[in-house]
Amino acid sequence: MYIYELELKVRDYECDIQGIVNNSVYQNYLEHTRHEFLLDNDVSFEQLHLQGIDAVVARIEMAYKTPLKPGDSFISKLYVAKEGIKYVFHQAIFRKGDNKVCLKAKVEAVVVINGKLSASHPQLDKLIALDASLL
Amino acid sequence: MYIYELELKVRDYECDIQGIVNNSVYQNYLEHTRHEFLLDNDVSFEQLHLQGIDAVVARIEMAYKTPLKPGDSFISKLYVAKEGIKYVFHQAIFRKGDNKVCLKAKVEAVVVINGKLSASHPQLDKLIALDASLL
Amino acid sequence: MYIYELELKVRDYECDIQGIVNNSVYQNYLEHTRHEFLLDNDVSFEQLHLQGIDAVVARIEMAYKTPLKPGDSFISKLYVAKEGIKYVFHQAIFRKGDNKVCLKAKVEAVVVINGKLSASHPQLDKLIALDASLL
Amino acid sequence: MYIYELELKVRDYECDIQGIVNNSVYQNYLEHTRHEFLLDNDVSFEQLHLQGIDAVVARIEMAYKTPLKPGDSFISKLYVAKEGIKYVFHQAIFRKGDNKVCLKAKVEAVVVINGKLSASHPQLDKLIALDASLL
Repeated sequence: MYIYELELKVRDYECDIQGIVNNSVYQNYLEHTRHEFLLDNDVSFEQLHLQGIDAVVARIEMAYKTPLKPGDSFISKLYVAKEGIKYVFHQAIFRKGDNKVCLKAKVEAVVVINGKLSASHPQLDKLIALDASLL
Repeated sequence: MYIYELELKVRDYECDIQGIVNNSVYQNYLEHTRHEFLLDNDVSFEQLHLQGIDAVVARIEMAYKTPLKPGDSFISKLYVAKEGIKYVFHQAIFRKGDNKVCLKAKVEAVVVINGKLSASHPQLDKLIALDASLL
Repeated sequence: MYIYELELKVRDYECDIQGIVNNSVYQNYLEHTRHEFLLDNDVSFEQLHLQGIDAVVARIEMAYKTPLKPGDSFISKLYVAKEGIKYVFHQAIFRKGDNKVCLKAKVEAVVVINGKLSASHPQLDKLIALDASLL
Repeated sequence: MYIYELELKVRDYECDIQGIVNNSVYQNYLEHTRHEFLLDNDVSFEQLHLQGIDAVVARIEMAYKTPLKPGDSFISKLYVAKEGIKYVFHQAIFRKGDNKVCLKAKVEAVVVINGKLSASHPQLDKLIALDASLL
């Protein structure tokens, strides 16, 4: 199902006084995974922005399952679907080693071109066509 | 409806290359608001943790409405409800000045005592009883 | 000596597994203080950037004295001097209540206009003239 | 001279409105490099902390040379020396590809055991003995 995966490692400064990765940091992991996925498909978030094209997150849902801790490595996976004008990124983070689910997320993005909402963008549309055979 | 509000101001380092507050930073704002709300009601997130009692976020939903920018001040508001064993924080962020909604969020937390899920905790239960007449 | 001061409060997510504010976060406090100081003197870091004028940190020295903890409020102070082409911000952070020094810092910035190093900028030069009688 | 190196990649959320990695983020890179270096030598910052032993940064100097940008990979290097009771980490960050120096830093740490300053710690002392032949 997932068409892209990225291995990352927890950094100690990402952990809070509970000794686990702070909740907000997972959103950093998710964003970094999306942007690396885009780059891997020759789409640069930064270059799009410089052309006046912004992929903007409109809505995000995250379910926290198992906390990541200092020293943990993890695999961040995603696939993307189109729902109306939204590009919906289905993302999950799995702890390396035991493959336990740490986080499940659904991130809805829209395309804004020069400040106006756009129904789609060809560079993003081609990502929908990708399937898991690529992984 | 909201029983607590906190005024904060965007810090430039919280903004990303799109020139707006990065999506993950709103989760920092939401967490800080919840913890200040708790402190305001004599509940310390840190002290609870040192006693082996952790309020853990199980699920979060955020709808991004209007981006905050450098220089913006905003009001972060919340109220809390109980749904089964969950403490559900209903939170929203409003831009100061025009009162425009920037973010709406629903944050579901559970109580974990010495590593075991607990149905409730008296210090948190009393927060449910609060009503908007306090604000 | 200091000509500007800003009161801030530690946010729990800024603390790491040692239970104290993470070292890198003080740099956030220092930057935010400088930018608020600039705004207070009608200089916007963001607006300068949009005009192709960037104040760029070339060098920073920080001495950590007393760690800030969850719940602490603090006063962040600064004054600025000119040394050659450098604008040198002398900054310090004091814990509120007992006025204990938490951090002392020296931040050297230069002005870059359209990518080229500049000897000075009138909007920044006027800040040097300020003295402690303003506080 | 350097005895440890770690390759990392800039994450877009680490960049600010100037379109470059925010100054404070380099301190995250430096800390993560030190902790990975320690782990590589079987010293866990987290485990030490849980035993009441904290390596605490007392002083840091950073010289910013070339800004890192979205998409950049970089190599973070270090070696460590002992000066009196201080463990001094000499660190540098080089942009991958052209090997340009991005940052040079000197980080002075001391060991605090159960809240008291200690002259040294065997697990850290053995790191001094390491030389560049290991790299």
